[in-house]
Amino acid sequence: MITIRFNGSAYHGFQVQKGLPTVGGTFQRALWALLGAREDIKGCSRTDAGVHANMYCLSVKTESKIPCDGLVRALNGRLPDDIAALSCEERDMDFHARYSCKAKSYLYKIYNSEFKSPFLTNMAYRYKYPLDHDLMNQAAKAYIGTYDFSSFCATGGTVEDKVRTIFDAQVWREGNMVYFMVKGDGFLYNMVRIMTGTLLGVSAGAIAPDSIRDIILARDRSLAGMTVPGDGLYLNEIFY
Amino acid sequence: MITIRFNGSAYHGFQVQKGLPTVGGTFQRALWALLGAREDIKGCSRTDAGVHANMYCLSVKTESKIPCDGLVRALNGRLPDDIAALSCEERDMDFHARYSCKAKSYLYKIYNSEFKSPFLTNMAYRYKYPLDHDLMNQAAKAYIGTYDFSSFCATGGTVEDKVRTIFDAQVWREGNMVYFMVKGDGFLYNMVRIMTGTLLGVSAGAIAPDSIRDIILARDRSLAGMTVPGDGLYLNEIFY
Repeated sequence: MITIRFNGSAYHGFQVQKGLPTVGGTFQRALWALLGAREDIKGCSRTDAGVHANMYCLSVKTESKIPCDGLVRALNGRLPDDIAALSCEERDMDFHARYSCKAKSYLYKIYNSEFKSPFLTNMAYRYKYPLDHDLMNQAAKAYIGTYDFSSFCATGGTVEDKVRTIFDAQVWREGNMVYFMVKGDGFLYNMVRIMTGTLLGVSAGAIAPDSIRDIILARDRSLAGMTVPGDGLYLNEIFY
Repeated sequence: MITIRFNGSAYHGFQVQKGLPTVGGTFQRALWALLGAREDIKGCSRTDAGVHANMYCLSVKTESKIPCDGLVRALNGRLPDDIAALSCEERDMDFHARYSCKAKSYLYKIYNSEFKSPFLTNMAYRYKYPLDHDLMNQAAKAYIGTYDFSSFCATGGTVEDKVRTIFDAQVWREGNMVYFMVKGDGFLYNMVRIMTGTLLGVSAGAIAPDSIRDIILARDRSLAGMTVPGDGLYLNEIFY
């Protein structure tokens, strides 16, 4: 298992796509050159265009004798500045970065300021109007539990079972930055971005703070808030 | 007086230079279009290529009747994402962003980590080896005072008087980030970058922590540490 961190600004997500720059494609080329073999990589998650990762895990089955430490150093020598290899550890042969994963957390960064920040282009979603992070935090607690999250899933997905368990959900502020952190056993397509948009709706007064449970139970996408942009989203931690 | 903030990564410094992208040139084009006149802008400071500003002030003499608030909004509509207008206020006609300035502070950001950060490309200087920020902070106190800072000035400058007063100098750590903040009535060419390099030399054991005063008094550039890269440097605050 190899753990990486990446700035997704320049990529069309993780998953390898022909003719498009992807994190997976870029990583794969670096790895293949080092292993001398075109081994399949399994990522822990799909990520959308522009989404970042503080932590992203992938598994590779290889006969290579390169020691883990050496592989991390060599990868960092080959990877571009927006992808960093953090660690590598050996796992059993039945380990799979995606299917062995027990939980993930995401972080959504909202830069709450009248002015754009020249230092946060593509790195956070700017929201101009004052945000009530305490109210958002209270409302976010309703996400915790096991539910059919159809109301928080973009239409057009192919996943049948939309039941997921959310373990934790928090909103807090550090200066101008408002963070939404959510941890769950899995996430539907655009789920974190719709959850965030719904909390923005709560702060703006468009969605009643105590209505989130009803929105979940209604299984109706139209009742939840907007889908916020991908560039504020960070895959934050992967739990095995 | 207009206050801006900029990410200097894409620019050859503030000062307008023919045929090169500069912060001043880019700002000037936006301003001229709004004022309908090619008014001279006076910046508070030269900045090197790649250097950033949390705060940068400039003065413009104009007969334009656009109110200050409207000007800020209109500028932000025209400026690229890496330059933001923060505020605008009217001043007396003898005000000059550079010559009226009483003090400035700079911040130098050192990302102290074995791994590069994909989120800090061009935004901080990465230093691999453990840094003793307490020792650096102690050593930095020797910068405070009025001295001829020739030892901390890149050769080739044209400034005759190299006496400057440093009011404050501090080093602290927040996680993997080590900050050096220095406030003074003025700074020589590359002065903050050489001050930072000297503190890195202190942490590495190459420069004795109590020798900084002697290095200053010797007025000999070769005794101070390396000039660290410009991309970790932020003009931080301007005092009038």
